[in-house]
Amino acid sequence: MPDTISDLESAMQMLIKTFHKYSGKEGDKYTLNRGELKELLLEELGTYLGNSKDNEAVEKVMNDLDANNDGEVDFTEFIILMGALTVACNDFFLEFKTDDKPKGQSS
Amino acid sequence: MPDTISDLESAMQMLIKTFHKYSGKEGDKYTLNRGELKELLLEELGTYLGNSKDNEAVEKVMNDLDANNDGEVDFTEFIILMGALTVACNDFFLEFKTDDKPKGQSS
Repeated sequence: MPDTISDLESAMQMLIKTFHKYSGKEGDKYTLNRGELKELLLEELGTYLGNSKDNEAVEKVMNDLDANNDGEVDFTEFIILMGALTVACNDFFLEFKTDDKPKGQSS
Repeated sequence: MPDTISDLESAMQMLIKTFHKYSGKEGDKYTLNRGELKELLLEELGTYLGNSKDNEAVEKVMNDLDANNDGEVDFTEFIILMGALTVACNDFFLEFKTDDKPKGQSS
């Protein structure tokens, strides 16, 4: 093991660690059932889901992810969700940088 | 801003921060050119690329990502790469947990 890891490597570890923290709670230890997914979303992504204790945002995410109807979210599906959220966050962040446009773009 | 952020939220921030640290260096500030991508991979993912200072692994990643031939990697393409790497890491990690199989699996 190296002494230090980069931010990117930390990010990967955090994604893996967080998934297994919840997936291991009940049933199949390597997938999230609806209860585990809900707990993960509310506890770990409260900021992005607006801390809504009502279930609207959570249900929407569950329905999107559960398109294959197996009632379980595996690690790859979880990573697709996190990737989509991260891209959305990045877009949101860039919208505030209006005075800092790409070089090729005229104002 | 909340006082504390979760590991998942930290991971998202690290992904965004790291991309822009390199994408902002030259040319289009919101995409990685080949030089910027190479620097990011070598400096931030050295552990996973085996710290190979030869260019083999880097060139492979570049060629995969540059399928659209625009010579630039945007944030979404970067996130797809990171997602694939994280899934690969997770699979690797699980291979070592042979005494800890999912319930449905007979030994």
